[in-house]
Amino acid sequence: MATLSLLSPPKSHSLSSLHHRNALSLRTSSTLTPRTRPLLSIRAFSAPALTQDDLKKLAADKAVDYVKSGMVLGLGTGSTAAFVVAKLGHLLKTGQLSDIVGVPTSKRTEEQALSLGIPLSVLDHHPSIDLAIDGADEVDPDLNLVKGRGGALLREKMVEAASDKFVVVVDDTKLVNGLGGSGLAMPVEVVQFCWKYNLVRLQELFKEEGCEAKLRLNPDGKPYVTDNSNYIVDLYFKTPIKDSIAAGKEISSFEGVVEHGLFLDMATAVIIAGKDGVTVKTK
Amino acid sequence: MATLSLLSPPKSHSLSSLHHRNALSLRTSSTLTPRTRPLLSIRAFSAPALTQDDLKKLAADKAVDYVKSGMVLGLGTGSTAAFVVAKLGHLLKTGQLSDIVGVPTSKRTEEQALSLGIPLSVLDHHPSIDLAIDGADEVDPDLNLVKGRGGALLREKMVEAASDKFVVVVDDTKLVNGLGGSGLAMPVEVVQFCWKYNLVRLQELFKEEGCEAKLRLNPDGKPYVTDNSNYIVDLYFKTPIKDSIAAGKEISSFEGVVEHGLFLDMATAVIIAGKDGVTVKTK
Repeated sequence: MATLSLLSPPKSHSLSSLHHRNALSLRTSSTLTPRTRPLLSIRAFSAPALTQDDLKKLAADKAVDYVKSGMVLGLGTGSTAAFVVAKLGHLLKTGQLSDIVGVPTSKRTEEQALSLGIPLSVLDHHPSIDLAIDGADEVDPDLNLVKGRGGALLREKMVEAASDKFVVVVDDTKLVNGLGGSGLAMPVEVVQFCWKYNLVRLQELFKEEGCEAKLRLNPDGKPYVTDNSNYIVDLYFKTPIKDSIAAGKEISSFEGVVEHGLFLDMATAVIIAGKDGVTVKTK
Repeated sequence: MATLSLLSPPKSHSLSSLHHRNALSLRTSSTLTPRTRPLLSIRAFSAPALTQDDLKKLAADKAVDYVKSGMVLGLGTGSTAAFVVAKLGHLLKTGQLSDIVGVPTSKRTEEQALSLGIPLSVLDHHPSIDLAIDGADEVDPDLNLVKGRGGALLREKMVEAASDKFVVVVDDTKLVNGLGGSGLAMPVEVVQFCWKYNLVRLQELFKEEGCEAKLRLNPDGKPYVTDNSNYIVDLYFKTPIKDSIAAGKEISSFEGVVEHGLFLDMATAVIIAGKDGVTVKTK
């Protein structure tokens, strides 16, 4: 584990950590702060606290630094990934990036990217992806992830597993000591057929972790249906998953389980935005 | 491996192997042959050769011998399983069986069972099944199977994995030295999203076996869609799969693969109908 990136350093539009701190304060200050002002006083004047969205934007911008013209890019899904896609669209529009092909991980991301004029493709035509960028719901100290609260876990996993490098962007609230430790959902995509049977089996599998399994519902009370016509069973843990590698294998072995939200040994770098700036962790 | 059944011997309507041979000749002879006639002459007189359907019926009847009143039964899918369901319906109607609950593995089987008045349930309500009976496309010497040419592999695997005992019924043309050895399809159910990507990956995985992967199509040329809204990629092998256990794990590890047609270490007995009668193989 290191805090230096193993990825090639960005070339065309590299931003230093200091630059990021300035960008941060420019965003959050109500008045325009000159970039030459000393760091300390900038902080003192930045009246509104950083929102989670501010932090997500910061991390997203840092991730986009790794993008080079000519790349095939996996485009993630969710609020942080949306900032990445927006930034890519901006850089393409201004000519700072060119010849990019995006492979979206959901219909939502596809729509957003299309609206921004980002050329798109699919794994069928681009089975090898240079770099995928996506958010995550949890990141453990080994850079294993929980993903898919946005409901796109299968497509995300397909695209990110096909990527040479996978950069994860999060704010520091997503860091956990053990997966499942946030107390929020770890999603499992299951076929609709006998979903209740699999829900019970999943809950039983994590008895020791005090797991509660719930079918994901839409606001109207009907089951949430994924892009692949499946259901999502959300697992809530009282204590973190003991052995996430073993757990991943056991969940996958259940017939009718299509995919799960444990993204193990996949991330090559995690960009973490916190109140003290942006840090990059690599394996 | 043994040719004696490890299952409890059927009680109410047990048929000996000899009885079966007689039943066989009664079915295939155009004139009614008395059951006391010597075996040799019966054979000599049975003018029409046994069709594959005759053999399937024989094996199906033998399998139904294991059914007892009060059981929860997994009902398979396909031409042989249809004979099993028909026989069950008959035995319920005549009162030879009672208090049976069937858990069908496909919409087709569900419809057939309903039309015969067989009470039905689902895994959600009956997560533990006493006995599943189903056909198979291939059976190897270790009783590992290829199944799912009928397109219902996922539901079959869910139900049969939940069954205490799993009896497979085949005619002897289904016996192979190694899985994939028949040269016919080994199906893999994949999500529709980027099916071509997975098709290519599957074909590459079995390069050594000279694998050709094809998307299953309907007669109208459109992709065949499973009960779970997925596609089927059929794998055709020039030589049998070298290590089916390893292959099963590798296929399952592909994101977007929902299930595959290798049913490994699942069958507790295989009933094989051949021209010389019915044999039962158990592990």
